[in-house]
Amino acid sequence: MSSTSALTRPTPELIERFAAIVGPRHALTDAEATLPYRTEWRDRFPGATPLVLRPESTAEVAAILALANEARCAIVPQSGNTGLVGGQVPDQSDTEIVLSLDRMTRIRDVDAEGYTMTAEAGAILADVQAAAEEAGRLFPLSLGAEGSCRIGGNISSNAGGTAVLAYGNTRDLVLGLEVVLADGRIWEGLTGLRKDNTGYDLKQLFIGGEGTLGVVTAAVLKLYPRPRGQAVAFAAVESPAAALSLFTEARARAGHDLTGFELMPRIGLQMVLDHLPGTRDPLAETSPWYVLIEIASGHSDEAAAATLEDVLGTAFEAGTVIDAAIAQSIADRKAFWHLRHGMSEAQKPEGGSIKHDVSVPVARVPEFLDEAIAAVAAMVPGCRPVPFGHLGDGNIHFNVSQPLGADKAAFLARWEEMNGLVHGIVASYRGSISAEHGIGRLKRDLLPGVKGPVAMDMMRAIKAAFDPNGILNPGKML
Amino acid sequence: MSSTSALTRPTPELIERFAAIVGPRHALTDAEATLPYRTEWRDRFPGATPLVLRPESTAEVAAILALANEARCAIVPQSGNTGLVGGQVPDQSDTEIVLSLDRMTRIRDVDAEGYTMTAEAGAILADVQAAAEEAGRLFPLSLGAEGSCRIGGNISSNAGGTAVLAYGNTRDLVLGLEVVLADGRIWEGLTGLRKDNTGYDLKQLFIGGEGTLGVVTAAVLKLYPRPRGQAVAFAAVESPAAALSLFTEARARAGHDLTGFELMPRIGLQMVLDHLPGTRDPLAETSPWYVLIEIASGHSDEAAAATLEDVLGTAFEAGTVIDAAIAQSIADRKAFWHLRHGMSEAQKPEGGSIKHDVSVPVARVPEFLDEAIAAVAAMVPGCRPVPFGHLGDGNIHFNVSQPLGADKAAFLARWEEMNGLVHGIVASYRGSISAEHGIGRLKRDLLPGVKGPVAMDMMRAIKAAFDPNGILNPGKML
Repeated sequence: MSSTSALTRPTPELIERFAAIVGPRHALTDAEATLPYRTEWRDRFPGATPLVLRPESTAEVAAILALANEARCAIVPQSGNTGLVGGQVPDQSDTEIVLSLDRMTRIRDVDAEGYTMTAEAGAILADVQAAAEEAGRLFPLSLGAEGSCRIGGNISSNAGGTAVLAYGNTRDLVLGLEVVLADGRIWEGLTGLRKDNTGYDLKQLFIGGEGTLGVVTAAVLKLYPRPRGQAVAFAAVESPAAALSLFTEARARAGHDLTGFELMPRIGLQMVLDHLPGTRDPLAETSPWYVLIEIASGHSDEAAAATLEDVLGTAFEAGTVIDAAIAQSIADRKAFWHLRHGMSEAQKPEGGSIKHDVSVPVARVPEFLDEAIAAVAAMVPGCRPVPFGHLGDGNIHFNVSQPLGADKAAFLARWEEMNGLVHGIVASYRGSISAEHGIGRLKRDLLPGVKGPVAMDMMRAIKAAFDPNGILNPGKML
Repeated sequence: MSSTSALTRPTPELIERFAAIVGPRHALTDAEATLPYRTEWRDRFPGATPLVLRPESTAEVAAILALANEARCAIVPQSGNTGLVGGQVPDQSDTEIVLSLDRMTRIRDVDAEGYTMTAEAGAILADVQAAAEEAGRLFPLSLGAEGSCRIGGNISSNAGGTAVLAYGNTRDLVLGLEVVLADGRIWEGLTGLRKDNTGYDLKQLFIGGEGTLGVVTAAVLKLYPRPRGQAVAFAAVESPAAALSLFTEARARAGHDLTGFELMPRIGLQMVLDHLPGTRDPLAETSPWYVLIEIASGHSDEAAAATLEDVLGTAFEAGTVIDAAIAQSIADRKAFWHLRHGMSEAQKPEGGSIKHDVSVPVARVPEFLDEAIAAVAAMVPGCRPVPFGHLGDGNIHFNVSQPLGADKAAFLARWEEMNGLVHGIVASYRGSISAEHGIGRLKRDLLPGVKGPVAMDMMRAIKAAFDPNGILNPGKML
């Protein structure tokens, strides 16, 4: 499946035909010009490409795919190029064409009354958020890369982020799609309907499909009312088990209004305080674990604060929470969130970090953490686990920093071994080895093991049905 | 596609082999015994069948499908047999085997802390709700047939209901599935994870797949906190446009806590008052249109009531609401909802009713209603449109009662003509001709026209990939 064996490197003549579709200015062949499209920011997947195409319309995308399908050329769809699993960059064969959506950035329509927006795949997430805000609405998807990631990539990777608890993953925020299929036909599925039971829900295959089944060119997105109030607390807890109790209490009291619940270990906070300028510890005493809680209200900040105080008050009495700082201003709220969002970046100066993006059933996160922390400590004595993330979704970024003073390369050389260890534990909890980042190239070899033969057969059958020549993002996912 | 031409009526010998799988007691061949499985409550799709099989386990379902696939026998999966489009009953050829899930009723697991439940396909929706309630949780799916419909059918038809506004359709309430494929293989996809980006989201094809791609045997369902408070109002409004303004206001103020928003016309309320015993008008004066608003709270009834009063107060001042009754007790709330739920039943004594289950973008519901009401009145002078439903989802049950004193049969003879008229208007709003009931047999011929050739090709390719012999629910949907 999706093997590149039958695919060909585009000839100069073919490159000219592709270039004619988008205009020569938007067909890049020069190694320097293609560099930002064939490498990604972590530099883990350096690629080569004979051609980067930057279409400006769905019709151009369609013409590109029709030609690529006819000529059997591999196409790598790319939007913001911020993915973490190498799904959006070409391989090193120097045969794969990059199809960048970065010129298709239009917000086609905002329907405030209908709570929908239609955006093209290349629209930057922050611009989508801003267009919603301008219309008095909320587009809740929010993640670290929001200033540069693009909505087409968010959709193709079913991005998660920090608002999943209340609003769901990207999948839950998409009402309709426009997709160019492998043979160049356009599927115009741009419906804004809340309910539509007419046949299979085709859009679901492209959401999280990592560009292997079609190229998403536009989407109808769900908007929400903007909360009129918000309250944020940074709370110290003894353990992940205490954090889970606090989550259960917060969920029961705030319901849908619980919009954020993030777990952080002391070591992660310490790294942020050590390495990110302008940060400070919101609490006087140190604590082994912390939780960031965000609560929204349709009424006012006061109402959100009342709910938050209700939750924290109960938790104090129960001994679940040791101490807590409540944000007194918007600046405070941002500062608390900055501590959380800085957790990944702050690990870099500490040397090598072996990463896992895993999820387990929410109620089993504490057990999982105990077991996984003990296991990596036994494997690499002195290593420093920095597990943090979306406790309310069961999604933990289980990052492990190298031992102090250890050799970075030697530590990172054990990446796969440690992944194997942690993923084995994840499997015993019936968890996921890729909670939000996808499979791409990074975890492709692991997929058959975690899905099993029946699911793999179904996926391969879908791939074969949608892209019989295997031109779409070969070597990714399947 | 999915033609029955290559399928065969099971021979007596084959019937014996099928019967051996489930045991002779659970293999029904007698016409009287099979009657409840081959007809449905509206009596629109009387069918014939040589065999009804009632397996008690997933393994038995797998054995049935393996044999059916080998022998090329058509299988009609059925759970509660409450569907409205004939998707769950055999045709009149007397060749199709009914596979009933009505013995697979176990709630396998309730995980209160993880907010999930695992239920078998034959569990009655009301029992699923009750099991959640027993664990202090809410399973929000709620619809008229909840006392007899079964969760497998709810999933296969992506049921909607009255809680979609806050909690989504059935699709949004399913985390994982166990499915038996056409060849008898079992896909064990019973994950309870909130986040899992490992490959295509296969479950989405079976949700709303109407049993044409596989037989759902069990599901992991999402649970929610039980609201600690609730408030319900029955409000009089001048027009659908006023109702839409009220909805916008309510949504902005209550956000996720707005759990119900239902539109009803005076004529519908009058029919309920005339025909359903024990009902009474909550308001002193009559009004052309009514809205039922339900608001939840994570705190208390008082908090929900405060939000509701806030919404209604603003609406009174703006002149959007003419009058409103607020439920003072649980009995009041039930009585208000009974008026809404009785709307379909109360139309029966009024003679023939031509039905449409349509949706349009929420913001365009008022325009659509104006246009559709005028159109059917022009087509059948004196006919009585009774459009009601889930305004907040854009989903209107556009039912049209016959003119007073007209001939029922003559009126009903115009069913397809009127459907064509209304669906044409729906199309001009980019709406759906089946918002929540599905396609089944009733709307099969309409599907190509509303989906277009590209979507139809994708659906047929999926069907061919999943069920190459076309044994699963032939003649339904595709």
